[in-house]
Amino acid sequence: MAKITPRTLSGFMELLPAPQQQLERMMDILRKTYALYGFTPLDTPVIEASEVLLAKGGGETEKQIYRFQKGDADLALRFDLTVPLAKYVALHGGDLSFPFRRYQIGKVYRGERAQRGRFREFYQADIDIIGDGKLDIANEAEIPSIIYQTFTRLGLKRFQIRVNNRKILNGFYAMLGLTEQSGDIMRTVDKLDKIGPDKVRGLLTGELGLTEEAAGDILRFIAITGSNQEVLTALEGYRGRNEVFDAGLTELETVVKYLAAFGVPEENFAVDLTIARGLDYYTGTVYETTLLDHPEIGSVCSGGRYDNLAEYYTDRQLPGVGISIGLTRLFYVLGEQGMLNPQLPTAPADVLILPMTAELTPAIQLSTRLRAAGVRTQLYTEQKKFKAKMNYADKIGVPYVVFLGDDEVSAGVVACKDMVSGEQTTLPFDETLQRIREGLALREQGSVIVE
Amino acid sequence: MAKITPRTLSGFMELLPAPQQQLERMMDILRKTYALYGFTPLDTPVIEASEVLLAKGGGETEKQIYRFQKGDADLALRFDLTVPLAKYVALHGGDLSFPFRRYQIGKVYRGERAQRGRFREFYQADIDIIGDGKLDIANEAEIPSIIYQTFTRLGLKRFQIRVNNRKILNGFYAMLGLTEQSGDIMRTVDKLDKIGPDKVRGLLTGELGLTEEAAGDILRFIAITGSNQEVLTALEGYRGRNEVFDAGLTELETVVKYLAAFGVPEENFAVDLTIARGLDYYTGTVYETTLLDHPEIGSVCSGGRYDNLAEYYTDRQLPGVGISIGLTRLFYVLGEQGMLNPQLPTAPADVLILPMTAELTPAIQLSTRLRAAGVRTQLYTEQKKFKAKMNYADKIGVPYVVFLGDDEVSAGVVACKDMVSGEQTTLPFDETLQRIREGLALREQGSVIVE
Repeated sequence: MAKITPRTLSGFMELLPAPQQQLERMMDILRKTYALYGFTPLDTPVIEASEVLLAKGGGETEKQIYRFQKGDADLALRFDLTVPLAKYVALHGGDLSFPFRRYQIGKVYRGERAQRGRFREFYQADIDIIGDGKLDIANEAEIPSIIYQTFTRLGLKRFQIRVNNRKILNGFYAMLGLTEQSGDIMRTVDKLDKIGPDKVRGLLTGELGLTEEAAGDILRFIAITGSNQEVLTALEGYRGRNEVFDAGLTELETVVKYLAAFGVPEENFAVDLTIARGLDYYTGTVYETTLLDHPEIGSVCSGGRYDNLAEYYTDRQLPGVGISIGLTRLFYVLGEQGMLNPQLPTAPADVLILPMTAELTPAIQLSTRLRAAGVRTQLYTEQKKFKAKMNYADKIGVPYVVFLGDDEVSAGVVACKDMVSGEQTTLPFDETLQRIREGLALREQGSVIVE
Repeated sequence: MAKITPRTLSGFMELLPAPQQQLERMMDILRKTYALYGFTPLDTPVIEASEVLLAKGGGETEKQIYRFQKGDADLALRFDLTVPLAKYVALHGGDLSFPFRRYQIGKVYRGERAQRGRFREFYQADIDIIGDGKLDIANEAEIPSIIYQTFTRLGLKRFQIRVNNRKILNGFYAMLGLTEQSGDIMRTVDKLDKIGPDKVRGLLTGELGLTEEAAGDILRFIAITGSNQEVLTALEGYRGRNEVFDAGLTELETVVKYLAAFGVPEENFAVDLTIARGLDYYTGTVYETTLLDHPEIGSVCSGGRYDNLAEYYTDRQLPGVGISIGLTRLFYVLGEQGMLNPQLPTAPADVLILPMTAELTPAIQLSTRLRAAGVRTQLYTEQKKFKAKMNYADKIGVPYVVFLGDDEVSAGVVACKDMVSGEQTTLPFDETLQRIREGLALREQGSVIVE
């Protein structure tokens, strides 16, 4: 028979079992951490009507989207989890309670140019808090604590949550009489990290046609750095000249004030006036998160406050605040950097039973007992030489191998080999179980990410 | 601004938060149970090259598949998890260890005619054990124990795993000289439950042109019922007339023999000679699982043994055994039948904190402490009347509400209301935490499914 060559599409991550276990562990931590903060899981379809997904329209989205006909229907695959959330809240709003807090971890699709480390199918892990008409500033203060907790539980230490407020930026540009150009200015200033202050100044006075004075004011403003308190104090010097600025500063002060109570250490948080986020729909606090030792990766968790989640679907005003982790890319980058802990178990089972008797009943009974005790157990029943069986155990990386021959069965004991230390014990079931449990608990102690 | 009407496509399940929590709980049980048996999680792309997905080609699949062009690429959405597994094993076989045991819970797509209870996007939850060249019969005996454990952990009691062996059927039809028609005969016999023996006889002698004698032999054969031992004894009466039959009977006897050791009670398991499974690729043991009180639902977990997983991609012989649960449909049917336990918590949080002070620091600190203790906590900071806040707590179904006013803060206590009993306590943090933990443990005791 002629064969079809098996292949996986370029830009689609397909992992071998061991790295898949690492990714599952990360997802599990994200789910649990998000749930700890009172977010409910949602799952929306991957396919939506194109009209619904493209309600906002325009730009890169339309070029990258996977869109197709099925019968009469014009369909598309979701390219993020925000538009489906907007649709969900607009559609089911009457059945929801506000503030509505949801998390969603799901695949999204963008037909980008294939490139190393760029994915066309990738997981996003989002949380959003949606208010009905209003949403208290305390929610914006809570977000950094969720980012902090998530990355800490993953095992990261050297990361920084960088926070700004769009009202401060908008207010500042209004002071300079540059409101209409503020979008372009912010996009330019956003490049500061990448191209440096001189090139930013060049773009401001060149492309954007600002005066030297205005460009100087802007560069002085975004050069305000120091401890959070120092930055806030410097910003207080601008107070009283613009209402929007003043409101933004008060919000930022509130966010900073509650940090410690939310359990976020000062070293993992920085007020950073260069953060603007490209998207036009952010209106208040904005967030980026960078790995201090890997600035080249860029932000691994971004988001912010917006005033109108679902304006394309409903007149109902739905302000919110949310963040998104590009999980597939993060996982890829961590792997590239050698930051995924190789010590954590990735085997499909904790125990592999090798029956040494033709009649399998005792081995099967043992597997049933171990599973009832919560131990992930595989029964190996293939007719192979002993060496081949041990090779299999090595290859899957199972921590314990249990041998069960006639001697053990008649003596009521279990022979159990620790595959790392090589130590082998012959003990009754309960003692073997205890040894296995203790060993597994030790193995589980590390974090997913190591720096 | 003109609005786009928000809508979700017909045939796509989109749940409100409470039922979504119920579905998540089911998925969590499936993941944990599959893992307990030594299966490793896999995640393959939703999109594959059409050529790869349609390697087998033909039939309903081709009509129902979501297929489209993106640039030059001819792409399609997976319609099951078996074809992607075949591709995966053929592609990555050199990096895998055999027997290779994987589970996958993922969405698949079929553009079926829209119909109540039929979904175009739905979850399948599959396990498969793949051998390299050979696979021991003990694996076929283990499968019923996984089905049993899965449904038992979900809370079902009145279900039956029905098992047969295709070799017994093929051997039997060979005895009658009906090998070439055996496929058609099995598909007809498969309808026995739905249309009864007389109509099956009519189809056999009519459409298929069998003699009355052959039809009588077939109906007598599939009428063999009774306890597993009685059925096996009756089958022994046919032994010695056909090699394939004899091999199948020996396999079936092995499967039945190991049942008890695998922890499967006799009442949840039945040898059933009418089970054939429509698919041609099953070659040994086949499985169906029915809910005894809801036979109209049909099989909720089916599968079997096959000889050649990946024959369209590779010459390597990869026999296997697997089962699949149509999770979305099962969830839908359970909901329709009122079998989803309404007692289990579905709130986004365990505790809702209502701060009664303008300064939020004490309330935020309390939320941080509760979260550090593993309690899912939401902080409610919106400016609303007390009654509106309590309405919110009622609506999201949160089990505990904690009030924190100046009095509680200065006394170092916490006021906590049990939203079901209405009982309110004012106690130090540790005692409140203990009360909450005990209450939550009680609430978690039920199973997802109730009969």
